[in-house]
Amino acid sequence: MDAKEASATDLKRPREEDDAAAAAASMETENGDQTKEPACFSSVIPGWFSEMSPMWPGEAHSLKVEKVLFQGKSDYQDVIVFQSATYGKVLVLDGVIQLTERDECAYQEMITHLPLCSIPNPKKVLVIGGGDGGVLREVARHASVEQIDMCEIDKMVVDVSKQFFPNVAIGFEDPRVNLVIGDGVAFLKNAAEGSYDAVIVDSSDPIGPAKELFEKPFFQSVARALRPGGVVCTQAESLWLHMDIIEDIVSNCREIFKGSVNYAWTSVPTYPRHVSLPFNIHGVIGFMLCSTEGPDVDFKNPVNPIDDSSSKSDAPLKFYNAEIHSAAFCLPSFAMKVIESKAN
Amino acid sequence: MDAKEASATDLKRPREEDDAAAAAASMETENGDQTKEPACFSSVIPGWFSEMSPMWPGEAHSLKVEKVLFQGKSDYQDVIVFQSATYGKVLVLDGVIQLTERDECAYQEMITHLPLCSIPNPKKVLVIGGGDGGVLREVARHASVEQIDMCEIDKMVVDVSKQFFPNVAIGFEDPRVNLVIGDGVAFLKNAAEGSYDAVIVDSSDPIGPAKELFEKPFFQSVARALRPGGVVCTQAESLWLHMDIIEDIVSNCREIFKGSVNYAWTSVPTYPRHVSLPFNIHGVIGFMLCSTEGPDVDFKNPVNPIDDSSSKSDAPLKFYNAEIHSAAFCLPSFAMKVIESKAN
Repeated sequence: MDAKEASATDLKRPREEDDAAAAAASMETENGDQTKEPACFSSVIPGWFSEMSPMWPGEAHSLKVEKVLFQGKSDYQDVIVFQSATYGKVLVLDGVIQLTERDECAYQEMITHLPLCSIPNPKKVLVIGGGDGGVLREVARHASVEQIDMCEIDKMVVDVSKQFFPNVAIGFEDPRVNLVIGDGVAFLKNAAEGSYDAVIVDSSDPIGPAKELFEKPFFQSVARALRPGGVVCTQAESLWLHMDIIEDIVSNCREIFKGSVNYAWTSVPTYPRHVSLPFNIHGVIGFMLCSTEGPDVDFKNPVNPIDDSSSKSDAPLKFYNAEIHSAAFCLPSFAMKVIESKAN
Repeated sequence: MDAKEASATDLKRPREEDDAAAAAASMETENGDQTKEPACFSSVIPGWFSEMSPMWPGEAHSLKVEKVLFQGKSDYQDVIVFQSATYGKVLVLDGVIQLTERDECAYQEMITHLPLCSIPNPKKVLVIGGGDGGVLREVARHASVEQIDMCEIDKMVVDVSKQFFPNVAIGFEDPRVNLVIGDGVAFLKNAAEGSYDAVIVDSSDPIGPAKELFEKPFFQSVARALRPGGVVCTQAESLWLHMDIIEDIVSNCREIFKGSVNYAWTSVPTYPRHVSLPFNIHGVIGFMLCSTEGPDVDFKNPVNPIDDSSSKSDAPLKFYNAEIHSAAFCLPSFAMKVIESKAN
């Protein structure tokens, strides 16, 4: 495994050096210093955070920045945490919003409970990415789970989450969690065959470093690591902008997962993206949900309701429920035509 | 009726005079002139359209402006049409996006077919607002409908839609349509009791001129104008930001509509708002769906499927289908608790 670790000492206050685009404006940091703005703020709206990406040309989503709390650079990406005017604290990786305190519940709960509530008694779960810990927090609600493995490439994301997002990073405190800092592709290649009930892939854009995570060899590794009738859930784009990419992902999954292949979607206002991956846009996130050959999995009708009272966490579910689980598989007509033609 | 009309001669090219904030940048208009940018462009991002409102402090949603096609001022609002980089032509009223060519289908189809597919054989339908014509286009798909009345306050919106959005304004061509330019509140007060099967309210924010459209007297007028077991559908905010407002609307509706009271929501990436009303944000739109005392209406299980082949329109439905109709009533847990406690 070619894990590269960024030590906790890399966690530092906003850098003094900055590029020319940021020269015009200044901003108060946590400790009261005046410092130059990161480029992703000042290049578009002074005093605002703006995300723009080749993935959605011609669009920007902006949140008012009240205070920059952290700015660092790991071996993999630029990491920023700021206090926003209306969404609480916001985590940004390479200029792209990953999570906000206000709406992280929708993403974390759906990417986790859509797969885990679709199979009876999940015991062994693997999370690829998800370094903020929110998916771990959600997996931990399932009393049947005995082991939760996580492979996250960037240790700085874990450290920053523990420092600034304690209600998200609380997931790391569960004693069933084994955290590995390393490359998810390599981790899966080395995983024992048929060893997991569920794999959750909290991955990034197919454009960029996570490209491999949307290609057949990766899906093949996932299928190999799952038990018969095991399930995978992976982030899968916005229906509104990238039907072409979704079409390819569905085709690839249909070839590799011999159980069922489904597309679901849900609403997340700030389009959070997780762990090095700008992947949900337009206030919606899509998920691919597939199962391997074996016991049938009917994703649209969950068989494993969460008993909130059995959860180690004190906080109740905010977003997920059995009704919204089923509703997530109801697609707009324009998408249904394309996806059903590829999935069946 | 205190209708005020803006004549078609008010349709004019972008104004030469502009405020100081716009002085820095210029933009090519349809006829090639260089003119100053409207304030809502340049005040935030040069070359971009940005919408900001007291309704969602600290947030902005931005689209790249390729060309301003129209700018005018009616008796009620500023009207702008621009060509965007990725969403086709965009209609903006008082600085707020109303519709884009790319995603208008979701809003128009859902606000129309959620009520009309929930009752058998709707014959007489009233639309308040909706001056772009898109809701009319959707109502016209229902072969059972014999009469479609529309009361829109701003004639300029109708004229601009006919000029720049022919695929939306096509709704006005249906021979069953009676368009009245005037005040919707007054129109409803004068409507015959029990005369409509369905009323669709394409209204604006409760902050501002449309405030009345969210208060009890207006809902009472709607209930009076509906037949027993008649239905109303009105835009009703984003679950993500304004649960307090939604709570009040639900309480008011519960007092006045003695049939059923329901909340539904759907995804529209650019948060379009219609006819003088900045009302859907965060990529989702909510709807209140209520029925009057009389034959039961079970909104969650549509009884009146649309037969596409009977439609006068050649274009098939892009977004709506029976599955997504039912799914729209499945709410996140945080919203379900509040709304169900008020609605039942």
